[in-house]
Formats: sequence, structure tokens, C-alpha cells
Amino acid sequence: MYDMTIRLQTDGGKRLYEQIYEHIRKEIREGKLLAGERLPSTRSLAEYLQVARSTVEYAYGQLVSEGYIESRPCRGYFVCSLDELFQMEAERMAPERLGEDCGKQGKGELEKDGTGEKEEEETCFRSGKGEIVCDFSPNGIDMTAFPFGVWKRISGNILNYGNSELFAQGEAQGDYDLRVTINRYLHSSRGVNCRPEQIVIGAGNDYLLLLLEKLLGRHIRIGMENPTYKRAYRIFQSFDYQIVTVDMDESGMQVSGLAKENVAAAYVMPSHQFPTGAVMPIGRRAELLNWASEQPGRYLIEDDYDSEFRYRGKPIPSLQASDEKGKVIYIGTFSKAIAPAIRVSYMVLPEALLERYRRQCWFYSCTVSRIDQRILNEFIRDGYFERHLNKMRKIYKGKQELLMDCLKPFRECFHISGEDAGLHLLLTARIKVSEEELTSAALDRGVKVYGISDSLMDKRQGKLPVGQRATVLLGFGGLDGRQIMEGTERLREAWLKDG
Amino acid sequence: MYDMTIRLQTDGGKRLYEQIYEHIRKEIREGKLLAGERLPSTRSLAEYLQVARSTVEYAYGQLVSEGYIESRPCRGYFVCSLDELFQMEAERMAPERLGEDCGKQGKGELEKDGTGEKEEEETCFRSGKGEIVCDFSPNGIDMTAFPFGVWKRISGNILNYGNSELFAQGEAQGDYDLRVTINRYLHSSRGVNCRPEQIVIGAGNDYLLLLLEKLLGRHIRIGMENPTYKRAYRIFQSFDYQIVTVDMDESGMQVSGLAKENVAAAYVMPSHQFPTGAVMPIGRRAELLNWASEQPGRYLIEDDYDSEFRYRGKPIPSLQASDEKGKVIYIGTFSKAIAPAIRVSYMVLPEALLERYRRQCWFYSCTVSRIDQRILNEFIRDGYFERHLNKMRKIYKGKQELLMDCLKPFRECFHISGEDAGLHLLLTARIKVSEEELTSAALDRGVKVYGISDSLMDKRQGKLPVGQRATVLLGFGGLDGRQIMEGTERLREAWLKDG
Repeated sequence: MYDMTIRLQTDGGKRLYEQIYEHIRKEIREGKLLAGERLPSTRSLAEYLQVARSTVEYAYGQLVSEGYIESRPCRGYFVCSLDELFQMEAERMAPERLGEDCGKQGKGELEKDGTGEKEEEETCFRSGKGEIVCDFSPNGIDMTAFPFGVWKRISGNILNYGNSELFAQGEAQGDYDLRVTINRYLHSSRGVNCRPEQIVIGAGNDYLLLLLEKLLGRHIRIGMENPTYKRAYRIFQSFDYQIVTVDMDESGMQVSGLAKENVAAAYVMPSHQFPTGAVMPIGRRAELLNWASEQPGRYLIEDDYDSEFRYRGKPIPSLQASDEKGKVIYIGTFSKAIAPAIRVSYMVLPEALLERYRRQCWFYSCTVSRIDQRILNEFIRDGYFERHLNKMRKIYKGKQELLMDCLKPFRECFHISGEDAGLHLLLTARIKVSEEELTSAALDRGVKVYGISDSLMDKRQGKLPVGQRATVLLGFGGLDGRQIMEGTERLREAWLKDG
Repeated sequence: MYDMTIRLQTDGGKRLYEQIYEHIRKEIREGKLLAGERLPSTRSLAEYLQVARSTVEYAYGQLVSEGYIESRPCRGYFVCSLDELFQMEAERMAPERLGEDCGKQGKGELEKDGTGEKEEEETCFRSGKGEIVCDFSPNGIDMTAFPFGVWKRISGNILNYGNSELFAQGEAQGDYDLRVTINRYLHSSRGVNCRPEQIVIGAGNDYLLLLLEKLLGRHIRIGMENPTYKRAYRIFQSFDYQIVTVDMDESGMQVSGLAKENVAAAYVMPSHQFPTGAVMPIGRRAELLNWASEQPGRYLIEDDYDSEFRYRGKPIPSLQASDEKGKVIYIGTFSKAIAPAIRVSYMVLPEALLERYRRQCWFYSCTVSRIDQRILNEFIRDGYFERHLNKMRKIYKGKQELLMDCLKPFRECFHISGEDAGLHLLLTARIKVSEEELTSAALDRGVKVYGISDSLMDKRQGKLPVGQRATVLLGFGGLDGRQIMEGTERLREAWLKDG
């Protein structure tokens, strides 16, 4: 049994649970607590430290949810094997990451978005470059393993006269059955605490944000991280929201910035920030939640856009899971996990906003066809979704490992990060080179990579921290092995030829 | 589990079951017991309160029959979702919103929309009336003749590996192929002049209006006819538009009113006004178009919601067909012609707005799944849509003729109109009777009819023209022959018994 010696400070600087949490996390990260070691029970540690048991439980809970420790039934808490996490922590120190219109969905292999193509063409044309051989879009996804057969069978079973009610108008928030299923999924996989009544289903995040505009009000000030998800930024812009760049440190958005800027809402991606990949630690989460609780009408919009694809450590829990005061609007989507074309997203409204929704927005019909809702419901309910996710996690992990492998020659000149989760890696130059030089040299070789500054809210005003090295995003979701190998080979020629 | 703390009074004032019933009902209405929550079992509550089990069962039974709670087999009693109830309660207080939402889609035969059903139950409860035997909803549609087989076959052909690109993100305005098909259909059937590039496909009119808000700007003044389509009115209200009631005469909206009120846009249904059924003559159309042309930024929103169902005379062309200066925004939907659940609407933008859309809204992803777009495209392209429309036109015409027949005895006391098109008729009283007396007497006989004043924008301010007789709407789309016969028989009893 580990001997827990924590000097708790009661001078009011940090909360007790936070001190316990940080102490244990530090011990684990510094290798003083080893994988497999058992922690004291919450009861005995509480007694020992002379704090409430719930304080220890809260600290342990967070460590569990972040994958540092695990709870084994009837046996207690044990330290997880977490080598990968250290790396990530180290990377947090080197913040600020950039990217292409990372906001834009799907530019990968399958992406036939006219707009996107036009932009690409334009870029190529402008640069006088040839054909794009390999597009490392961070939004590409792999549809080759999609269980078309299952989808078709479910769909076929549903389309019959007995189900003619499916062709009638459904509930505005989405079919109750699907909301129950999503509720269950969110609770078990993301720790989201809600009732199906709080869920609103809509055709894509954009639409849900349009609804949210009606709930949050007009002309509000909204805080965003920088760089951020450009798509959300554009949408808030189209709302005439006053978008405030909130300063970030290695833990993410700084709460002091929110308070200073007098914003009404903040848009965050605590589990896997886009494009940086940063995970927001518990302390910052608590600070954010406290900030939101200080005044009625303050909300946190949590965009949990790709939580399904985490390759190392335990899933990072949602911010909503820690929200006890109804301050988090949780938004998720099936676009990445199933397919962009499915157009099903969901939003969990806290009670106060739910009430407002029911007063002000009840007449907006659901934008997802009931047939699609029913297919999706059966797909999840009958276990196909979980199987598909597990399969895709393996496929993406395999692609990522191949990419990491192919990037070995780059390690001398580039720091590689973001390998714990998601469908892209970040390459940060150790050498003196600009982002533009990197993307342009790549384009010369027919390879599209995405500068992290593309995710800056305003390229002119937004600037990366002084001394920040050039960083590019390499998405791999939509590429096959051959493309990854050829693409990296071309990048080697483009970037390392003189090295 | 809900903690049931009821202080039962045994002084003989109220019966025990009544006290339990009232307590729970109050808790539900005050939101202390939330939808989906489970109630204690009758046995355990009886034990806890020290009353006979039958007392609790009786109280629960009453709550079930009133729709407050429901019994799920083998699981117990759960609180129903009753938002509508509160909504309706609120509406009772604010009389301008009284009445059935005629704007609300589909309440017919196939309509299993919880909202609708509950509202009806509540209405019945309130009036102490029995079951609704016949609902003459103007929004009911008939799905019995829908070619499920064709839809299923097309869908099955599409869902295969060769079409995996369908699962990727599509174009923001909707798939080009479908836009070409819609363009052709609109041109040949409605005289609409546009290019596929001007069409934006979206999941329902509500969504398209949300997009339009971004194009037309905020805080604009918009003119509407009164009575009008309540759904659109509510949506404009949620935009904080200043909605101006523009006076009507027998040709429709008076242009002098538009000019006087300094509105930026007007929402009209020139081919078949809802609910009056009025057709706007060519002279008035020209006046409207001229008004719009006088200043840049003025637009006419043409909602062509049910142009497919015209039974007599030549088709009335769209207003857009006469628009030479790019002043008409044309909106149409497949909800009535195919099925509400399909969730496909389209909007034709004039060039100036198209340009604005491309600058300001290009990043909003299309809300309709590409699979659905593809199915719909083949359904129209291969002639199934036309065949289906022809069939439905016959079916609806048959229903309408039956209804007209059944209404013969009413002719002495009522003027019947609206028989040229659409899925409802209007009955205007020649006798001195109020709309409320008519709807209420109908409800007494288990028949739901819809007062025209439900479509008034603001019941307090909005008033029907002086001398206007009570008018009710009788929708027939969702009813079968038996229901039409029984419904009208009951109406005869209700309205003509003394006549």
C-alpha cells in the first residue's frame, strides 16, 4: 500500500480535492506511484488527511475519469499503466497549434464538398502547382469499413407499410427512442448525466448552433480558444456574436480571461482540443464551471467532436460529467464516428435552457428524417455502433502507427505530437522555418498539409505565442497505407532534402 | 426514485385518493416531478402512506387517464412528458395564442406526434369531453398510397459499397443532381425560372427560414397576411422580426399597406393562401413585384406549400414565374407531396441573395442526408413522383368530393369554400354563431375542427374583417371515407340539430 503523504494547504489557494488530485497525479507521472499499485481507500485516506470522504472521492473520481487510476470492484483503486500520458503532458507545455481550415469537415479521400474542392483548386492554381497526390486533411474519414450491409438491412426492414407512421412528422426534439439510446451511450461512454428529455437531435452541429442562438440570445459575447474549430467560429460570426479570444495556457482557456472579457458563454473542447489535441485538466475544468456558476445565464458550450477515437489511456470524461449546476451545453455528432452524410448531431441542454427551448423553440420541427433516426437507433441499440467504433479505432490506430513510423526520419527536425487521440498528428518544427514554407514546399510535391494558423480566428490579429515554431497538421483518417507512405516520402523530399 | 412526501389529511375534507392524485399532479405541473421519472409502486406508496393499496391505484389510474403518468408493463409508473401541457396552460393565460396550431404539420390519420395527441387529450379533459373520433386537421396527409416498395428498392440499390461517397459530406446547397431535378420539376410544374445553382436544399422550411434570417438581416420588418401560416409567424417571431399585419382585401395583401408600413420583406402564399385558400390575381402580383423593385433589399418570400394539389382549373403559376427583377425567394417542400418525415424543402434564391449566401453562409453544411437526397432524386427523376402525385391528387379529390357531398345538409347555414385546391375546406357560418361555439359544439361530439382565428397572428390585435362570419377549417387529407362520413354526421348533430 502506497504511503500517501500530502501536505494540504488550507489557506484557500487551491481546493482540497484539487490538491489531492494533483498530488497523486504528480506521483504517478513522476513514477513514484507505479502501474498496478493500489491506492488507499477513500475512507482511510479521508481519515488520514482529516477531510471529508467526498473530497477524496471527488479527487479519485477525476483521476479515474482521466485514466490515471482505475476502480476495481470490491478491491479498490489501482494505478493504470500510463506511459503515453506523460508525453502528452510534456506536450502541453509546448502549446499553441494551428491548422488548415480545420473547422471544415471532411476534406479527405471521400470528401467531394464543392466548396472545399474549389478552395483547393484555387490554392493549387494560385501556386501554379500540379495535382494533389496526397491530402493530409485532418477531417478525412475512412468509410471502407462501414457496415453497409447492416445499414441496408436495417433500412430495408424499416421501410414497409407497417411503419408508415415513420413517414409522418415526429417529435421536435427527435424520436424519444433514439434519445433514450443516445442518453445511454453518452452516459456510459462519456459520463454525461442527463435525461433523454434534455436531448435535442438535429441535422448537424451547425443546425444545433442555430437553435442555440435562439436560446442564448443575440449579440452576446462568446469566448473561444485560439486556435479553435474554425467552423464553429464562422458560425458564431454569422450570428453577429462578439467573439473574444480568450488567452490559453498549457491547461487551456484561462478563466481570468473570461472574467475580464465579460463573456456570456465560452466554446470549449476539453477532451481533445482542436487542433492542438490538448486535454483540459480537472482543475481548469472546475474553474470554468465555477466561473459559469457565478452568474445566471453563463454557459459553457462543450463540443465533444471526436471523443470516440482515443488510442491510449482511458477516455477523457466530458466536462458535462462534472457539471452539477446545469452550466454545460454538450454537443456531439455521429459525423466522425459513423459518416458525415448521416447528418445526426445531438445537444444536451441544461434544465434552464431546456425550459427556454420549450417556451421559445418547440415549434421548430426536427431536421432529421424519422427513418434515419430509426435506422440509427437500431444500429446503436443492437450493438453495431460499438462494434463499428472498435473496428474503426483499430483501423485509425493502425494508420496512425504507420504514419508515426513513416515520420521517424522527421524526428530530428520536428517534434511530433497528438498521438493519443483523434485523426491527425501535429508536427512542430525544431528548425527555423515558417509554416507557409512548409505547406508550400509540400504543395510543390503534390501534398496538402494544413498549417495550424489556419485555425486561428483571425489570421491578421490572431498570433501564435512569441517563439512558437511552425506547426502543421497531418490528418490520416481518409488515407490508405499507400497514400500515407507516398505522402510522407514526398514530405521527406520537400522538407528534409537538405537535411 | 421520487421521494413522495404527502401530508394526508384525514379530517374528512377530501378523499385520500384525491389528495394523492392532487399532490402528484401538482408536483408534475410544478416541474418537481420530471418527465420520465418513475413513481413509487402502488404497493410501496400505500405502505409508506399507510393507506389501502386500492387508494393509490385509484389515484394513479386517474393520473394515467389524464395523461400525466403512464404505466409501463413490468416496470411501473412513469411521469409523461408534459411540456405541451404547460405550454398550453401558458397559452390559456395569453389568449392570443389560444387555439390549435394550424401551422403545425400533420395531425392527421398517421400523425402520432405526441404533442398533438396530448394537446387533444388535455383539451378533452378541460372540456370534460370524450375521445376525439374525428380530427379534421388541415395538416393531415394520407400515407396509405405511398409507394413504400419503390422507395425501399431505390434505397436498397443505393446502399452499397460502390456508393460509399454518399456517406461523405456533400455540397452545402444540396447535391447538384437533386438540384437539377428539382429545377426541372419547378420549371415544368410551377413555371419557376432559375438555375440549379440558385437552389438551396434543407431539412424543412424552418431550417431554410433560419438560413434566410442570415441573408435578410436582423430586426427587419416583415409583412404578413392575417390570418396566415402560424408556423412561419412563430419562426419570424423567434427571429425578433417586427411582424406587421398587412391589410388584405379580396385579392390578398394590399400593397399600400406594405409601403405605409415600411417593411423590408413580405411573406405571401399567392397560389393558395393558408388558411383562406385565396388565389392572388395577376394584377396584385404585379403590384407586389413593383413594390419590391422600388428599393434594393426588398424581397417577397413566396411559400408555395401545397401547389401540387389543385383539382379544378389550370395550375396557378408561382409568383416567382413573373419575377423579372430577382425579388422573389421561392420556398417549397416535399412534406405534403411525399411525406413530412422526408424532411426535404428547397429555396430558390434570387441572384443578389445567392451571392450573399455564398459570402456569408457557404459553411453551413446541408442538413439533408445525401442518401435521402439520392433516393429522392431517383424517385423524381424516374417518374415515380409524378405518378405518386397524380394518384394522390385523385385520392384527395375523391375525399374532398365525399366531404362536399356530406356537407350538403350544411349549405343552408354555411357557405363552403376552398374546393379548388388543397387539403381543407372552409365553412363560413351564414347563421349568427361564434367560432368558439362551433368548435366547442363539435368537440362535444368528439370532432375536432379548426377555427380560422387560430391562424391569426395575434388574437388580441389581429381581427377578422368587420362583419366576418365565424369560419372553421375542415381538413380531410388524413381521414378515410368512414371518418369523413362519421365526422360530418356528428357535426350535423352538433351544428344543425335545431336547424
